[in-house]
Amino acid sequence: MENKLRFGVFGGGSWGTALVKMLSENLDNVGWYMRNEYAIRHLKKEKHNPNYLSSVEFDMDRLNLSHNINEIVSASDVLIFAIPSAFLESELKDLNISLKDKIVFSAIKGIVPESGEIVGEHFHDQYEIPFKNIGVITGPCHAEEVALERLSYLTIACADEEKAKAVADVLKSDYIRTKISDDIIGTEYAAMLKNIYAIASGIAHGLGYGDNFQSVLMSNAIREMKRFIDRVYKMKRNINNSAYLGDLLVTSYSIFSRNRMLGNMIGKGYTVKSAMMEMNMVAEGYYAAKSAHLLMDKLEKKSKTPIINAVYDVLYKEKNPKKVFAKLTEKLD
Amino acid sequence: MENKLRFGVFGGGSWGTALVKMLSENLDNVGWYMRNEYAIRHLKKEKHNPNYLSSVEFDMDRLNLSHNINEIVSASDVLIFAIPSAFLESELKDLNISLKDKIVFSAIKGIVPESGEIVGEHFHDQYEIPFKNIGVITGPCHAEEVALERLSYLTIACADEEKAKAVADVLKSDYIRTKISDDIIGTEYAAMLKNIYAIASGIAHGLGYGDNFQSVLMSNAIREMKRFIDRVYKMKRNINNSAYLGDLLVTSYSIFSRNRMLGNMIGKGYTVKSAMMEMNMVAEGYYAAKSAHLLMDKLEKKSKTPIINAVYDVLYKEKNPKKVFAKLTEKLD
Repeated sequence: MENKLRFGVFGGGSWGTALVKMLSENLDNVGWYMRNEYAIRHLKKEKHNPNYLSSVEFDMDRLNLSHNINEIVSASDVLIFAIPSAFLESELKDLNISLKDKIVFSAIKGIVPESGEIVGEHFHDQYEIPFKNIGVITGPCHAEEVALERLSYLTIACADEEKAKAVADVLKSDYIRTKISDDIIGTEYAAMLKNIYAIASGIAHGLGYGDNFQSVLMSNAIREMKRFIDRVYKMKRNINNSAYLGDLLVTSYSIFSRNRMLGNMIGKGYTVKSAMMEMNMVAEGYYAAKSAHLLMDKLEKKSKTPIINAVYDVLYKEKNPKKVFAKLTEKLD
Repeated sequence: MENKLRFGVFGGGSWGTALVKMLSENLDNVGWYMRNEYAIRHLKKEKHNPNYLSSVEFDMDRLNLSHNINEIVSASDVLIFAIPSAFLESELKDLNISLKDKIVFSAIKGIVPESGEIVGEHFHDQYEIPFKNIGVITGPCHAEEVALERLSYLTIACADEEKAKAVADVLKSDYIRTKISDDIIGTEYAAMLKNIYAIASGIAHGLGYGDNFQSVLMSNAIREMKRFIDRVYKMKRNINNSAYLGDLLVTSYSIFSRNRMLGNMIGKGYTVKSAMMEMNMVAEGYYAAKSAHLLMDKLEKKSKTPIINAVYDVLYKEKNPKKVFAKLTEKLD
């Protein structure tokens, strides 16, 4: 199956760049859509993405680059989306080809603000793609370490095992191990929720809590994540697998995580607005906190997610982080 | 109950010093045995332990210090041991009072080399102390952060809930939260095993593996820890509670952990012997790796603990860490 499939990556950020690098280890032709025309010109001339993972040199003979999304969609059977969820819809508005018969994999960690859905659900509901043609590519995996070819493990989830395997096969290499899963809902929610917990971790750090507290926060976060995901979609899953716990840890313990950085600035006294402006980057946990909070509120399970509630109160209700976290510490154990 | 109990701490290292600090927030009289006479003299004069957590100032009116172990044993109902497991027996050899009627809490993370047992089992088997009088004090808690009064959470485990509560009550304060548990075997094994995983984490770091791999290693370590503990003593426990997962994380992610440091040096090319000499400290995971490996071997469950086996092979069989870990990466997911 995999030999016949044509792959296209959508997004020119660091994770999109990392995915193109992984795919071009195995494939002669990889489609790559990015909005930034300057970056494409630079890539064609210099073989590097000027903005992200600029140390990676591409074999340009293997890349089919375009800033026209329709061109890459029509040239691909498997579309891998790595556009920040906040911008997904604005990039897709130029689309004039149906996605109905495409296989769509999400490498996006977050909620689409327009629909309030995770990316898989969004493509299913808004683009009529059946769930058997929807998949998720998840870490724990910082793009920066892919650039350095440091050993990393990916989980490829799809209800259709054959498709999960096909995508896993083209991603794996000397430095990438892959594992397949049938839990598209759980892995995608985990990838989204971890960003909220990374914000919590950053706030705690910014407020001066130490490593002891951080580990208690993580211990509570993984239990909260399990309660959340089990409530949304109950199935047999080991929450301590890499796609859930591993992804939470790599994000929350990394000083490079932008979600953690956002939290850290807020903990140190920045307002939410000024922290977001200062960072000049999208922290996907910001949107995720709102969606996750709304969802738990609707399901009347808010009492089960004290960490998400605390982050929500800080981000959206302008509550004092110091007071919110002092109260949160009483709910942890 | 707790009002009548007299407490004594045994050990003048950083964790013993932290425990005395915590107890003296609540108690008028805390017994404190340490071998080092110079440190006692210094404490009496300067109110600081010269060797560990030297920023902590003690209220000397509350301390009953002695380098005579029998003095502190006879003045205490609850004995809290914080002597490195490798030295426990040599310190106890001066004992000429029976421990039979004492309540013994272990704050030691490791295996007693002489018996190959965890500390609770050791006191039970060697000193005829019934299990209802044996308890465990466990983290996640770096002593250094207790000195800084940074919020930390302790788990106090005892089969006798009243005793767990009594010890929890005298330890808690503005900066210490306590939780009780009845899993004395599981919490103590977790506290021991985490040191082996911290060595693994250090070896990986020393060999150049990155954050992505580290999080996969931790995800596999907590699953391995669960298999190990369930095999030794099956009971209902949530392995993601702070005493298990939290303790694993604070040790493995901390650059201050001596077990991680030992691993890191070995990963960077030191021989085991020279790394141990260079550190001039006891890395309890070194002994734990042997005991854990032997136990799994005996129970014919070695195939279930690839990380412990890898650490054992590096520490005791002089196998090349790079090769051992390359092989280990294939067993992780």
